[in-house]
Amino acid sequence: MENTATTQRIHILVFDRCQIVDATGAASIFGSANEAAMKAGHTKRPYDIKFIAPETNQVKTSAGVSLYADYILGDRIHPADTLICPGGKGTPSFISNPKAIKSIKRIASRTRRVVSVCTGAFILAEAGILDGRRAATHWAYCDQLSHDYPEIKVEADPIFIKDGNVYTSAGVTAGMDLALALIEEDIGRDIALEVARDMVMFSKRLGSQAQFSTQLATQMAPPGNIRDLQL
Amino acid sequence: MENTATTQRIHILVFDRCQIVDATGAASIFGSANEAAMKAGHTKRPYDIKFIAPETNQVKTSAGVSLYADYILGDRIHPADTLICPGGKGTPSFISNPKAIKSIKRIASRTRRVVSVCTGAFILAEAGILDGRRAATHWAYCDQLSHDYPEIKVEADPIFIKDGNVYTSAGVTAGMDLALALIEEDIGRDIALEVARDMVMFSKRLGSQAQFSTQLATQMAPPGNIRDLQL
Repeated sequence: MENTATTQRIHILVFDRCQIVDATGAASIFGSANEAAMKAGHTKRPYDIKFIAPETNQVKTSAGVSLYADYILGDRIHPADTLICPGGKGTPSFISNPKAIKSIKRIASRTRRVVSVCTGAFILAEAGILDGRRAATHWAYCDQLSHDYPEIKVEADPIFIKDGNVYTSAGVTAGMDLALALIEEDIGRDIALEVARDMVMFSKRLGSQAQFSTQLATQMAPPGNIRDLQL
Repeated sequence: MENTATTQRIHILVFDRCQIVDATGAASIFGSANEAAMKAGHTKRPYDIKFIAPETNQVKTSAGVSLYADYILGDRIHPADTLICPGGKGTPSFISNPKAIKSIKRIASRTRRVVSVCTGAFILAEAGILDGRRAATHWAYCDQLSHDYPEIKVEADPIFIKDGNVYTSAGVTAGMDLALALIEEDIGRDIALEVARDMVMFSKRLGSQAQFSTQLATQMAPPGNIRDLQL
């Protein structure tokens, strides 16, 4: 187990009609890692987690409920160690705001690693961060990402992909798996598995695992077939 | 597929140092069901999702980031169809507030179904709602729930339990599985499976599924053993 020398800043972007679990899932995983690390004898919490919003602190997500951001994009704040961009229904509107994309570019350029969850990949794409890189996104948006940004090598299968210091994940819950992988990179496998146990995750999914599991495919089959399988 | 006749109010409690995904995971699942239902031709969104907080709208979760509540406990608001209580580090402090517990009792008495996620079971327990019932909670807190509230039949294994109109789930992500089961009850299996696909969940876990999966247990084994298994 590696002990934590410094507390790393995790900045999570939140914006109007973002997918709430894209943002909060990652926050929760890093929060659980703080608790697991302190229990394991670390002397400092490994992570300091903050939400950053484009304009106002109160941000309404696509579920209709709201988050409250710590900072506004453009505030003079300490550079983050990790920037995380969620996706969701509000992503097209966010990327059509040149000022917001300029801020993302600037922040990303001074950040050790840059992460997207779900259709948050479109934000990194619009900021030019994915040019020439392999990238994942929500299965329903792979074709569009590939079409809109032909210089990106979009891969439809994996639940997350690391290319250099840029990490992209598939839809929603896959962002929690990716956060778990970042924790494993930072402070080791034991803490990552403790977090998976704490969160009652079924398994620590690998990046290479397919977005469509055979289990879910079986459940999607018509009821008649499922009953046959259970006999 | 059943069509939605009315929009049901989902009220999710949030409080100081609650587990963020206990609250937002359920919100996200119901939000995704709204989108799936409208896409499937429903004429109304099936769910209206709100956060309710004990005292102030801004609520800091145990991860350090904040949610923003729509209502305050005690506000004169329309009764909910479903009340959802999350857990987390702040639960002991919440249940030691008699005014808050009285509000929960009152709201629950006029709510069609009452739900807890993770250690949110302690809130329902303190409000007397679990007396004589079977209940689930986070695996690390089953013994304490049983000890503190001996009239509850705590079950350590299932990821969620339905007893009458009271639903309790195991830790964190299990609350998302429970929310999926509620959607299946309300508007059918097809929408529930669409939501699971949208959220990139590995499978639609059944309530009876054990909190400790054999997959995670294998991953918890010492690295040497895992390498052996992969040969």
